[in-house]
Amino acid sequence: MTTGSAAGPVSIKEVAAQAGVSPGTVSNVLNRPHKVAARTRSRVEQVISELGFVRHGSASTLRAGHSRTIGLALTDISDPFCTGVAAGVEATASERGYAVILGNSAGDRAREERNLRVFAEQRVRGLIITPSGDDPRRLDVVRDRGIHVVLVDHRVRRPDQCWVAVDDFSGGHMAAGHLMAAGATRLAYVTGPLAIRRCRDRGRGAADAVGAAGPDSGTALQVIEVAAMDAPAGRRAAETLLAGHDLPDAIFCANDALALGLLRGLLRAGVRVPEDVALIGYDDVDLSAASAVSLSSVRRPTGRLGRVATELLIDECENPETHAHRQIVFQPELVPRESTRAM
Amino acid sequence: MTTGSAAGPVSIKEVAAQAGVSPGTVSNVLNRPHKVAARTRSRVEQVISELGFVRHGSASTLRAGHSRTIGLALTDISDPFCTGVAAGVEATASERGYAVILGNSAGDRAREERNLRVFAEQRVRGLIITPSGDDPRRLDVVRDRGIHVVLVDHRVRRPDQCWVAVDDFSGGHMAAGHLMAAGATRLAYVTGPLAIRRCRDRGRGAADAVGAAGPDSGTALQVIEVAAMDAPAGRRAAETLLAGHDLPDAIFCANDALALGLLRGLLRAGVRVPEDVALIGYDDVDLSAASAVSLSSVRRPTGRLGRVATELLIDECENPETHAHRQIVFQPELVPRESTRAM
Repeated sequence: MTTGSAAGPVSIKEVAAQAGVSPGTVSNVLNRPHKVAARTRSRVEQVISELGFVRHGSASTLRAGHSRTIGLALTDISDPFCTGVAAGVEATASERGYAVILGNSAGDRAREERNLRVFAEQRVRGLIITPSGDDPRRLDVVRDRGIHVVLVDHRVRRPDQCWVAVDDFSGGHMAAGHLMAAGATRLAYVTGPLAIRRCRDRGRGAADAVGAAGPDSGTALQVIEVAAMDAPAGRRAAETLLAGHDLPDAIFCANDALALGLLRGLLRAGVRVPEDVALIGYDDVDLSAASAVSLSSVRRPTGRLGRVATELLIDECENPETHAHRQIVFQPELVPRESTRAM
Repeated sequence: MTTGSAAGPVSIKEVAAQAGVSPGTVSNVLNRPHKVAARTRSRVEQVISELGFVRHGSASTLRAGHSRTIGLALTDISDPFCTGVAAGVEATASERGYAVILGNSAGDRAREERNLRVFAEQRVRGLIITPSGDDPRRLDVVRDRGIHVVLVDHRVRRPDQCWVAVDDFSGGHMAAGHLMAAGATRLAYVTGPLAIRRCRDRGRGAADAVGAAGPDSGTALQVIEVAAMDAPAGRRAAETLLAGHDLPDAIFCANDALALGLLRGLLRAGVRVPEDVALIGYDDVDLSAASAVSLSSVRRPTGRLGRVATELLIDECENPETHAHRQIVFQPELVPRESTRAM
C-alpha cells in the first residue's frame, strides 16, 4: 500500500498522498501541529513514520531562519530540580509542536558556553536556561542570533527579559515557621556554600521567621555552612552538631540530600527524630518519603516552572509584537512528614 | 584591544588575528580540537568567547554534510542510569571536540521517534541511544541519513552494529550469591514487571545462583513481581511479605528505589535489617549509602558505558574504513554495605 520511496528521499507530496490530505496539512503537522485535528495529525505522523520522511533540517532552517526546536540548557541533569523543570518544558513543547534538545553543563562554565554556541549554530527557535552564574553577557551569543531566551531560577532586573523563579526566601521562612510551630526554639540551618544564592535566600527566610518571634521568645538560629550539598556533607554536619555541647531541637537543611545524610548521622548516634530533634529538608526528592523516618520538606513546583517558561518562550517567538515580558515568582509548598511531627 | 565586530558577524580571520594564530588553527579548534595544543586551544576559545564568534551551523553543516554534534537519545533523564551514561558521553565527547545534544523520551515511544527525527534533521554526526523498545526499524530514520548509531543497554544480534551493555544476569547472580554467602537460604526476588528485560535477566541470574546450591541445600527463591520500580511499590511489597506466614531471610530487589521502600516497610514493622532479613538492591544510587541502614547494592559502570559508547561512535564516524563494530558487555560490581552484613 505504500507509494514507495526506493529512489531518493520521500517528499511532502508523497506523505500527503499516502495520508489522503493536502501537502499544506502535512506542512501544518510539521510546523503548526496545534492547528491540525488530533486524528488527522496522528494519521499524518503515522505515514511520516512509515515512509521514513525526514525534513531536511538544515535546508528548511536556512529558509525559515529558525527551526521548531527549543534548546534547554540545564546546569545539571542529575539534579532533581533540573529534571523536574525538563519534564515540564518537554510536556508543553510537545503539546505546541516543538521538539526540545538539551544541553547539560554539569556546573561547568566552559561547557555551558560551548552548549550555547551549539544552540546558536543549530539555530534553535528559543532557549530556556537555568544559568550557572550571574554573568549576563554569556547569553549574548544566542541573543545576538535573534534567539529568544527565558531564564529559570534566575532573577535579573531587566524588564525586557522573561524569567520564572521560586521564592526561596518564603520557602526558608515556611520551613523555620513550621519547626517553631512544632515547638522548636533552638534552630539550626545546615547549608551549602552561602555564596550560592538559593542557600542564602533560604537562610534569610529562616532568620526572618526566627526574628519575628521576638527577642523575648528565646528563639535562636545557628547557621552551619558546609562545603557540599550531598548526603556525606550532611553526615559530617551531624558529627559537628553531636560534638557540640548543645544540640539544637530542630534543624532545617538547605536540601534533602543534606537532610538525609544528617538524619542517618543522628539516628546512628541514638538521637531520635523527631522526638529529640525535628528535621526538615528542601526540594522533596523522590526518596524523602521512603527514608526510615519520612522526611518533611519544601517542594518547588518544578514542572510548573518548566511549563510556564515554555509558554512564555513560545509566545515571545511566535508573537513578538504583542508579547509582554513577564517575571514570575512561584511559591513553594510545605510537605510535612514524620520528621517534624509535633515533639 | 578587541578588533571590533560592530558591523556584521565575526569571521574566523578576525578570531585568528586576535588570538595570534592562523585561520587554520582556529578551524582546527572548531573541528579537530584534539590536534591543537591545550594552551593554544584555550586561548582561541577565549577569543571566540570574547568576540562572540558563532559558526553558522546550518551553512557549515550543508557544506560538510554533518556537524560535530553527537545526539544522545535517553529513555528517561530522571533515571540515574541514564544520567550516569550521559556524564560519560559528555566527558568523552568534550575531550574529542564534539558537542552533545540530548533528547529525552520519558519512556514515550512517540516522543522517542520525534526526537530521532529532530536528530536526523539537525544532521548530528552520530547517535547514542538507550532504546525504549525492541523495534529495530525505528532507528532507520537516522541510519538512512548516514548517521552512525551506538546502542547502550540494548543487545541486538547484528554484527554491523556497535553496542555496550551490562551483564545483568551476572549482577543478579552476584546479588543472590552474596546473600547466600551471608547465610541466607530462603530468598525473595522483588522485581518490577518481568516483561522488562533487565528485570528478567537479574532474576534469572539470581535463580541460577540459588539453583547452583543444589536441591539438598534447602535453598529456595520466591519471586514477587510488582507493577512499578519505585519506593512506594517497595513499601507495598513489604506489606505483602509481612502478611505472608513465612518471611524470607534475604531479599534481592531489582533496583534501589524498590529496596529503599521495602527497607522502610520492614523497619517500621519492627523487622531488623540485616539481623532478621538481609537486603540488597541494584544500581547503587546516591542515597543508598545514606539510608538509616546503608543499602548493599550492585553497581553498573554507567560512566564507563557512556565513555566507551562515545569512543566507538567517534571511531565509526571518523574512520569508517577501518572501524570494527564491537559489542561489549561490562560486568557490574557488588557494593556490600550494612544491609547484608553477615547475619
